[in-house]
Amino acid sequence: MTTDHRSASVHVHRVSSGASGRGEFDAVAVEEPLEIRLDGHSLAVVMRTPGDDNDLVRGFLLTEGVVLRPSEVRRVEFGDDAIADARLADGVEVDIAQFSRNMFVSSSCGVCGKATIEAVELLAPRAPEFDVRGEVIAGLTARLSELQPTFDETGGLHAAGIFDLDGRALVVREDIGRHNAVDKAIGALSAEVWPLPPALLVVSGRQSFEIVQKAAMARLGGVVGVSAPSSLAVELAQQLGLLLAGFARGDRFNVYAGAERLDG
Amino acid sequence: MTTDHRSASVHVHRVSSGASGRGEFDAVAVEEPLEIRLDGHSLAVVMRTPGDDNDLVRGFLLTEGVVLRPSEVRRVEFGDDAIADARLADGVEVDIAQFSRNMFVSSSCGVCGKATIEAVELLAPRAPEFDVRGEVIAGLTARLSELQPTFDETGGLHAAGIFDLDGRALVVREDIGRHNAVDKAIGALSAEVWPLPPALLVVSGRQSFEIVQKAAMARLGGVVGVSAPSSLAVELAQQLGLLLAGFARGDRFNVYAGAERLDG
Repeated sequence: MTTDHRSASVHVHRVSSGASGRGEFDAVAVEEPLEIRLDGHSLAVVMRTPGDDNDLVRGFLLTEGVVLRPSEVRRVEFGDDAIADARLADGVEVDIAQFSRNMFVSSSCGVCGKATIEAVELLAPRAPEFDVRGEVIAGLTARLSELQPTFDETGGLHAAGIFDLDGRALVVREDIGRHNAVDKAIGALSAEVWPLPPALLVVSGRQSFEIVQKAAMARLGGVVGVSAPSSLAVELAQQLGLLLAGFARGDRFNVYAGAERLDG
Repeated sequence: MTTDHRSASVHVHRVSSGASGRGEFDAVAVEEPLEIRLDGHSLAVVMRTPGDDNDLVRGFLLTEGVVLRPSEVRRVEFGDDAIADARLADGVEVDIAQFSRNMFVSSSCGVCGKATIEAVELLAPRAPEFDVRGEVIAGLTARLSELQPTFDETGGLHAAGIFDLDGRALVVREDIGRHNAVDKAIGALSAEVWPLPPALLVVSGRQSFEIVQKAAMARLGGVVGVSAPSSLAVELAQQLGLLLAGFARGDRFNVYAGAERLDG
């Protein structure tokens, strides 16, 4: 197996209509673990595609509510191992004991959808006021795939982009994990501008609860995807006033929350 | 929002070529958290589609290496909250402190792909000897979607099935999370027969490291998917002798590991 950061070349045995070919190569997406630490304490291990790890860690800490603004992280240190240690800025204190993987969920009092939504509401402000034209939304998922460099090669990477309300891409990132792609995009953009504008998070994967949670924590305006939302994602978006659009393909899309944001 | 276990009906605002329709309904996949406990100690919170929770918990404990055989779990207790408490059989002891979410990964000494694979190898035996005809593999993903009841309605559920070497479905389950769908299928089948035969795990989602890990822990013969494998999934399958096939569509598929299992 030979590898660059994002894709690895592996031997593949192709079979078609019973005939098979040996000795060919195929590119697959690289997946490697990264341990995320905060001031030396282990928070989580994510299975990610290497590259943009600094953005990934900063985005993760922000969208999981570990920090509330980018400036609370002074720097992220990378050693020889696959360990990223985020160092908090002076004077910032985080109760590390309360965090674990599935942070919002496990820290809520009682485990149910309602408690989970309430836990996000405690930290995420209501979405800002904005209008967006339907034709902008309709073009976003196609634009995301145009801008994704590696997917065509491996077929195995998710993409996430943040687009302004005129449909311009502000940032696009990709990763084998759809949560990681979102964290990388948010981490990269939030390092440049904070608070983020009421832009739209566009994803290649499903719009589950955690994806809407991450958009809400980053104070984005909404989430647009080519696929289906979950029930809890719809509820959270409704509760916080985010636009949530799914099945955005060609010139069609479905709006599950925030339809009042549509202009014209 | 009205809901049964697996799908919920939500208001949707459909937009097509700029025209929009209000007041329609759409079915979305239900997503709700479930906390998994072991003898009262919290292990993980999974975001899952309700239904088959007993199978989910049993499969999770087995495929994450918390228990090594189904009989080590005496029963799973469900209370009023979304909490499932698995009770160990008499005489079975588990070092709960070593487990957390991303169990294999975080418990390995050093975090890297190699250590992650070694951690699975410690617990999972090498795949058994078997042969399978290419035409059987070619038909599996289509058969999985025929047998998946809810996807067509919501477009949001992953499916996982276990098929014997003649292509007969032994079990099919679905869930908003692809790991959960796998755990439900393995949990259900392992309650009926253990050890499992050298059957094939067929998945609708990507074949990532954790999916191959789960198949290995359940002692299945391989993994077949409609999508792409990751680099670490390929390495783990090669290391343990599992068959790993991807892009199984129509009569074509690619074999990334275990091509010697192909008969004819």
